[in-house]
Amino acid sequence: MTRRPNLAVVGATGAVGEVLLGLLSLRQDVWGEVRLVASPRSAGRTPVVRGESVEVLALTEEAFDGIDVAVFAVPDEISARWAPIAAAKGVVVVDDSAAFRIADDVPLVVPEVNAAALRIRPRGIVSSPASTTLAMIAAIGALHAEYGLAELVVASYQAASGEGRYGEAALREQTALVGGLDAGRQEIGRQTGDLRAVIADHGPFAAPLALNAVPWTGTLTDGGWSSEEVGIRDESRKILNLPALRVSATCVRIPVVRTHALAVHALFEREVTQEHAQEILRGAPGVVLYDDPAAGEFPTPNDVVGTDPVWVGRVRRALDQPAALDLFLCGDNLRKGAALNLLQIAELVAGELRPA
Amino acid sequence: MTRRPNLAVVGATGAVGEVLLGLLSLRQDVWGEVRLVASPRSAGRTPVVRGESVEVLALTEEAFDGIDVAVFAVPDEISARWAPIAAAKGVVVVDDSAAFRIADDVPLVVPEVNAAALRIRPRGIVSSPASTTLAMIAAIGALHAEYGLAELVVASYQAASGEGRYGEAALREQTALVGGLDAGRQEIGRQTGDLRAVIADHGPFAAPLALNAVPWTGTLTDGGWSSEEVGIRDESRKILNLPALRVSATCVRIPVVRTHALAVHALFEREVTQEHAQEILRGAPGVVLYDDPAAGEFPTPNDVVGTDPVWVGRVRRALDQPAALDLFLCGDNLRKGAALNLLQIAELVAGELRPA
Repeated sequence: MTRRPNLAVVGATGAVGEVLLGLLSLRQDVWGEVRLVASPRSAGRTPVVRGESVEVLALTEEAFDGIDVAVFAVPDEISARWAPIAAAKGVVVVDDSAAFRIADDVPLVVPEVNAAALRIRPRGIVSSPASTTLAMIAAIGALHAEYGLAELVVASYQAASGEGRYGEAALREQTALVGGLDAGRQEIGRQTGDLRAVIADHGPFAAPLALNAVPWTGTLTDGGWSSEEVGIRDESRKILNLPALRVSATCVRIPVVRTHALAVHALFEREVTQEHAQEILRGAPGVVLYDDPAAGEFPTPNDVVGTDPVWVGRVRRALDQPAALDLFLCGDNLRKGAALNLLQIAELVAGELRPA
Repeated sequence: MTRRPNLAVVGATGAVGEVLLGLLSLRQDVWGEVRLVASPRSAGRTPVVRGESVEVLALTEEAFDGIDVAVFAVPDEISARWAPIAAAKGVVVVDDSAAFRIADDVPLVVPEVNAAALRIRPRGIVSSPASTTLAMIAAIGALHAEYGLAELVVASYQAASGEGRYGEAALREQTALVGGLDAGRQEIGRQTGDLRAVIADHGPFAAPLALNAVPWTGTLTDGGWSSEEVGIRDESRKILNLPALRVSATCVRIPVVRTHALAVHALFEREVTQEHAQEILRGAPGVVLYDDPAAGEFPTPNDVVGTDPVWVGRVRRALDQPAALDLFLCGDNLRKGAALNLLQIAELVAGELRPA
């Protein structure tokens, strides 16, 4: 291919799509046409990409004519239906949904960890992990390469924008409501269930989220596990090529607009030290070590919003397990957790299509 | 003793003290005099206890004259200084601070778990655990009795009122600020560090807390561990009489006014099942099982505020460890996490002083 490859962004007007268009304007430009695709409802809008207004097309089979790579940032059921249609036209699909993540014949790729997996894609589809997995896996992958990972225990602190624009708007409305009430009702948040009385509409969350925490994301699977909790396990196993890795995750939504955080307990095959683990993380691609509690340095979600890497702090050797580390990680759920990882994969595919 | 014992509440005007006075009005009344004590700054106030206004006295040695039991809900350094003074006058001190929790000659008591430990108190001081430990230990203790506990991995979701009235007020101010700004600044929480620009005063927190999460509570100890993280380990070991228990905790403050939550991964000596674990928790004293995700039933901090028990939901057998459970727990940090546990201990002491 002598021309530059053409990219379609499917879901261009969503929360992830918006961040993706912004990244296309910021990163080295490897693309010919950038075509924007969305639901018929959003067709006709003209967001700016690479300095130019581009009209959004409705999602149809024809929208993929002449396209080489398509990134999909749409709900599972839209990906499940349309990714195979695009792939059948010879388009390489890079999909952000959960529809194909665990399929044996679809690679699940994090470029810093398993870029080589990208090359075998019998269905023409490449999958990108969930934003929770992406908030830790570059850091955990680097530690695994050195120490050999045996077990992960994960607790998440997930942002409202994990539920897209609807989730973000719901948290903003709830925050404005309790923040505004506060002057007159100093008791808000101090009485059993009073947030339920004040916040009638929970939005996409299972309970009021402002001034609260909701221990539920995803859908119910066997044994009381949520789909997102099982996803962290299955995705970590697949990306790290550790099919017997032991993983327990508890997923919790907290009142943060953007950026997921994770508390991780990681048990390895070999002994660790705090200093050596910090050194590995300092040198790991896609990872920033920010870890000096004496100086007040540890990542918080808001400090990480809008940045590319996974930020790691609170690195500690377990007090009672010489082969275990405890960590706190933050990753922007819309950026590395979605748009950036999609675009990194798409750029690798573009590189394949344009041999030197 | 034929008369009813006299109780002193030291720290009567603080956040824990306020809840304690409320409980004294609600619970079966076993006390003669209830004397209120606080810093000289708060002396002279007249809060209502058991339906009567009671004047607050300044903390002096004389304030303990004629007192049988004193509960201390004050900062560590005040307890460290004044608890021995009260004890030297024959008062049984029930202390909420961290000053004596790990001392070998001070029992650390949770009535549902280790009431018998109360009887041996060579210094005349009994300690109550941290609110984080209390948010789980009644439930974990019941499971330990059945399965034999080997390891705990804990991630906390801690409320602002863990930093007392100052912490609660700081979160309210921050919430009002971002909630009020929100109408005009829809980007708040979406730009790197913008909360730091808007929230100049973090209050007692290491970073802005509204719309954020701060992975730091307590003070720095060796190896990057915080005092609260080490406390959860040391207190769990002491209460459960398991000096070799492996514990890793990561403590995180989130924007919740009141009630701590914990995600806990608990490994046992024997195999577990979800149903049996739920049955144990359903019957455990001081514990409520609220666990039906299909019906949207799991505890959230706001639903638990103002209630006595520890609430447990999301009970799952670990997918890859037949002897491990994953749980989500909520406990009101001012009630069972502080005031209620203090009062339960004080009532047990009162019972000793008034043999049948």
